Amino acid sequence: MRAQVLTKFGGPENFRLTDIPKPAIEPGKLLIRVAATSANQIDVKIRGGSPFGPELPAVLGADVAGLVEAVGAGVIGFAPGDEVYGCAGGVKGQGGAMAEYMLADARLVAPKPRSLSMGQAAALPLVAITAWELLERSGVGAIDHILIHGGVGGVGHVAVQLAKTLGARIATTVASAEAAVLAKSFGADETINYREETVDAYTDRLTAGHGFDVVIDTIGGNNLPNSFSALACEGRIATTNAFTTQDLGPLHAKAASLHVIFMLLPMLRGPGRDRHGRILRSLAGIVDDGKLRPLVDDSHFTLETAPDAHRRLEAGKAHGKVVIDIAPDWRPMSRPKT
Amino acid sequence: MRAQVLTKFGGPENFRLTDIPKPAIEPGKLLIRVAATSANQIDVKIRGGSPFGPELPAVLGADVAGLVEAVGAGVIGFAPGDEVYGCAGGVKGQGGAMAEYMLADARLVAPKPRSLSMGQAAALPLVAITAWELLERSGVGAIDHILIHGGVGGVGHVAVQLAKTLGARIATTVASAEAAVLAKSFGADETINYREETVDAYTDRLTAGHGFDVVIDTIGGNNLPNSFSALACEGRIATTNAFTTQDLGPLHAKAASLHVIFMLLPMLRGPGRDRHGRILRSLAGIVDDGKLRPLVDDSHFTLETAPDAHRRLEAGKAHGKVVIDIAPDWRPMSRPKT
Repeated sequence: MRAQVLTKFGGPENFRLTDIPKPAIEPGKLLIRVAATSANQIDVKIRGGSPFGPELPAVLGADVAGLVEAVGAGVIGFAPGDEVYGCAGGVKGQGGAMAEYMLADARLVAPKPRSLSMGQAAALPLVAITAWELLERSGVGAIDHILIHGGVGGVGHVAVQLAKTLGARIATTVASAEAAVLAKSFGADETINYREETVDAYTDRLTAGHGFDVVIDTIGGNNLPNSFSALACEGRIATTNAFTTQDLGPLHAKAASLHVIFMLLPMLRGPGRDRHGRILRSLAGIVDDGKLRPLVDDSHFTLETAPDAHRRLEAGKAHGKVVIDIAPDWRPMSRPKT
Repeated sequence: MRAQVLTKFGGPENFRLTDIPKPAIEPGKLLIRVAATSANQIDVKIRGGSPFGPELPAVLGADVAGLVEAVGAGVIGFAPGDEVYGCAGGVKGQGGAMAEYMLADARLVAPKPRSLSMGQAAALPLVAITAWELLERSGVGAIDHILIHGGVGGVGHVAVQLAKTLGARIATTVASAEAAVLAKSFGADETINYREETVDAYTDRLTAGHGFDVVIDTIGGNNLPNSFSALACEGRIATTNAFTTQDLGPLHAKAASLHVIFMLLPMLRGPGRDRHGRILRSLAGIVDDGKLRPLVDDSHFTLETAPDAHRRLEAGKAHGKVVIDIAPDWRPMSRPKT
């Protein structure tokens, strides 16, 4: 089969389109004929060199949508020909989706939303599971007024839509008037241009100084102090990035809870993989109910041009998820009819 | 009435036994004839000068047990003569218990456990509400293997007993063989002499390297990295002290949750006071069921010698809570009959 093989950690020039053996089916796994994958920031980090990356040479690519080609011993609930999606590779110990076929732990995979194309489905798993876990761990519900940092970002735009299904009142930070319109189309009740308004100012304006019940911080790191400032007493923060050193005094003064979501952990370790599969099944239902749609960048990449997908993501110019069509010939068959 | 009045922030020599006016009853409050109070570390900190302390001169003392003398307008569920307990003062905006009478927000007060003396009851509120909130926020249940730092300390010894009622498997750190025996009498399944065994060694020994599902860190601050090390992936830490700057990388690598309990917050702000009263009602039931008993230091202090109670606590020699009998003449009437 053909695959983009990373030969050296570094820039996208280290990918090589190569013919390598098609993976053999294994117990507990699915062999997926890859229709599409999407590029995530973590793929870029792993390409550059990360403790979570595979040994080289390796095929990268976490998100996948495709057709089940073969079902491993002990796997129930899947049959050849099933359309599936998942976040199931690109890290240490796993295969990758930048190839014509991918071997994936069946627990990480679920039936694809029927109302999405393969490319749209491949845009969802990593960001949508992350958004789900951020909201679930911080216990977001209908009584909560929540702040989502980065409401049109990869994780953020899914978090806004999912929080809407939970009935929460949603404020979100954006960087432009256009992004504000987009965030509102996802269900945000209130938008904040963080370049024009301080944390204290928008917290006062939107919460009368009370603070947000929950802050979903899809940026994290040095943005965490902003989340601490925006939070209500006894509030909850959930973040995707706690690789940082911080003064926790503000958390203490507010008797707060800080939840860290590390989406790759089940893939890296094992425990929790079944949870990811269950979340994807729930997400497919929400998508097919019309309550969640991925924002996909208006660009087009194939297996041959996949390194350019990384370049587009890194350039920061993409408006939505960057999708790579691996088998574009049969992608149209699962596009929505509308 | 007579009261120990703090005239200046600093050492215990700044208390003055003084005659001051008995507080007048107010709406929403109870006037309590104080039978006993207990000294907590936070009382000592406030005496030394803390942003949470009252303006001077002031009466300190958070924990109280006594008799309802008068019931304010709008208060239901209390009548003069009721035996009550609570953590209801000693901070900014509140009265204090180092006096013959104390005015307390009725929401912070509950009927005293019938099986305890006034002195024993006064030993419980601050530490027991804290222990309850640590366990509740971190969601401790019967499937959890938990580590409690400081299992014979003020908060720790209550946390061990309450965790036992939840069915958790409990490991706790202690500093001596005698403390280990005591911790086991409270319900600890496993004890660790933290002076003789490293965190990694006891985590490996007790959890086969898996880590503890929950760590209750009653020490916090610079002890937090030990809690991070002892924790399982996707585990929960609850602490009483996050006034510290920490590298959160280990929390990220484990996708952990960090909960901060700041017990004084409802007293300082208002919201949550009713919760404290409800917790005290639940605790009284657990006490009267024989499942929770306070460890009381074998010392004896009165209103006259109350500054010495602070000295004993600060000397670090107390084995259990340091109680101050304010009205010893009628304390015997509510002692258990056994």
